[in-house]
Amino acid sequence: MKIVVDAMGGDHAPEAVIAGVVEALDEFDINIALVGIEDRIKEELQKYSYDKSRVEIIHADEIVDMQDPATVTIRKKKNSSIAVGVKLLKENGYDAFVSAGNTGAVVAASTIYLGMLEGVERPAIGLTLPTYKSFSFLIDVGANTAAKPEHICQSAIMGRVYMREVMEVSDPTVGLLNIGEEATKGSNFEKETHKLLKGSIKNFVGNVEASAFFKGASDCVVCDGYTGNVVIKVSAGLLEATGMLIKREVKKNPLAVLGALLMKKTLKHIKKHSDYSEYGGAPLLGVDGVVMISHGRSNPKAIKNAIRATIKEVEHDLNAAIKSEIKKEACSSELGARSSQK
Amino acid sequence: MKIVVDAMGGDHAPEAVIAGVVEALDEFDINIALVGIEDRIKEELQKYSYDKSRVEIIHADEIVDMQDPATVTIRKKKNSSIAVGVKLLKENGYDAFVSAGNTGAVVAASTIYLGMLEGVERPAIGLTLPTYKSFSFLIDVGANTAAKPEHICQSAIMGRVYMREVMEVSDPTVGLLNIGEEATKGSNFEKETHKLLKGSIKNFVGNVEASAFFKGASDCVVCDGYTGNVVIKVSAGLLEATGMLIKREVKKNPLAVLGALLMKKTLKHIKKHSDYSEYGGAPLLGVDGVVMISHGRSNPKAIKNAIRATIKEVEHDLNAAIKSEIKKEACSSELGARSSQK
Repeated sequence: MKIVVDAMGGDHAPEAVIAGVVEALDEFDINIALVGIEDRIKEELQKYSYDKSRVEIIHADEIVDMQDPATVTIRKKKNSSIAVGVKLLKENGYDAFVSAGNTGAVVAASTIYLGMLEGVERPAIGLTLPTYKSFSFLIDVGANTAAKPEHICQSAIMGRVYMREVMEVSDPTVGLLNIGEEATKGSNFEKETHKLLKGSIKNFVGNVEASAFFKGASDCVVCDGYTGNVVIKVSAGLLEATGMLIKREVKKNPLAVLGALLMKKTLKHIKKHSDYSEYGGAPLLGVDGVVMISHGRSNPKAIKNAIRATIKEVEHDLNAAIKSEIKKEACSSELGARSSQK
Repeated sequence: MKIVVDAMGGDHAPEAVIAGVVEALDEFDINIALVGIEDRIKEELQKYSYDKSRVEIIHADEIVDMQDPATVTIRKKKNSSIAVGVKLLKENGYDAFVSAGNTGAVVAASTIYLGMLEGVERPAIGLTLPTYKSFSFLIDVGANTAAKPEHICQSAIMGRVYMREVMEVSDPTVGLLNIGEEATKGSNFEKETHKLLKGSIKNFVGNVEASAFFKGASDCVVCDGYTGNVVIKVSAGLLEATGMLIKREVKKNPLAVLGALLMKKTLKHIKKHSDYSEYGGAPLLGVDGVVMISHGRSNPKAIKNAIRATIKEVEHDLNAAIKSEIKKEACSSELGARSSQK
């Protein structure tokens, strides 16, 4: 198996990327193709000892910035590490692409250069989030901000397959993120989507209130890309601010400092449980290739975990599983309506 | 000043409502009109000693359930405590209405029976949320799930006035909740709204990423009602699940239990800071009357705090301040476009 890694993607590239790759080479039986500015990659690799025969370097001289619009890899920077990396998946011998770079650019490049899986209209990014029970898979967390009910339905199918194949959850439940439990809640979009999911998706448990999500209300939870992005950003921001708040308040009181020291192991365990980068990256589903998105701020461990999750996707041939389950009509409004009338 | 309180609203009504009202009578120099099933109200009041001359009981024999659709107070249950309570504001001697009942029903009843303030097209619910810095005001957190850019702009004006008059924040900043900082981020709706706010709102600081919200990126943050509702529900759910998780993990380790005991005072302080019911209720802005919504799960203290915030609104004559600042054309797409071309 050979995983293509975007050496230039993310805030701490290429240093963190290459450090993560070296860790991955140590833990997993894979080969790596590093795409990016050759000189910088080599300079970084020199710091480590690893089996050179397992690493290929592919030069790409353009870099996509975080502020670049999503279409940059298609119009301007066709020789960026993202564009070159994605396109490699069309050749033999390259099994997946991992990038901590500009998410929009990765999504656009994957959509255009790899194309969509048959039956999937729009890609969706999924993310495994820890819950009180264990974890849930939220999809779409940002690929498609102009989603239609059919897209949400297709996300549901892909999410169920992902959880079953990669996360080994048998017969996952699916819920629709909504602002209330009753089927009448939400805007017209949610009501229509609810109807469609009810008629099309196995194990659909109905609406999941955003407040119930973190208690583990459903294995897989679907939503449009904008809402999903808000959910993960609010969560990350709130946890971060709460952590900062706890630190600030604890420092004010010597007894509390002592208490925190005694709780250190427990707090570390909780922090680890709550850190979604522990669970891997954010898979981009629906495109005809295995693409894994890692957070822009990914440290070496996050990169390594993203690679681990990617390996699982390849091993389980996720896209073949998605293709066999998604039939184009299964999520059309017509069939949805017919199914719910059965 | 006489505050009308919905005795039947909320999960713990009338017990929690009346307990909170009695606390309010003790702390604030106001009179109360309790609306609801007279017998049940009297039965509950008997448990307390208070100045009976300060409490009026107004009988309303219908109860709005949490699952009732929003329009119930207009079509079916016209004699519910919500409908009766809201309508009282049109008479002399009743200054504000507080309810922990069905939010949609309160919004609908207020909109229909009180009408909108001139220049405001749609009502919006605001909520003060604690941040790492201090607090921010998020609006709209659920009144209008089909918002147009003009509505967001009107929310911005109302939010600024609310923070200035009631929360005594001089010259509050306003940000637009978005999934990225750049003006190009978000769907078409966000881009259009960004342009409009930039041209119309004083102290507009641009986009506020959901992750930056809790660090205190802006005093007032505006969004559509659906997104806002997701934000507050995700926050509440995440905090609750995190608290449950911490308890569960601490119990596993005796040292951690000891540590938690030493940190008890600090943890209590943090919990209090993070509890948004400490800051009052959620004001419904834009209607021609002072209406305060309290969370369905409100305990007596939350009811009392909601009443406290309501008193401030009445004292500062918030609606007069809003009326004088909101001019209908100020938030129209035309004027917004013209302003941004200056």
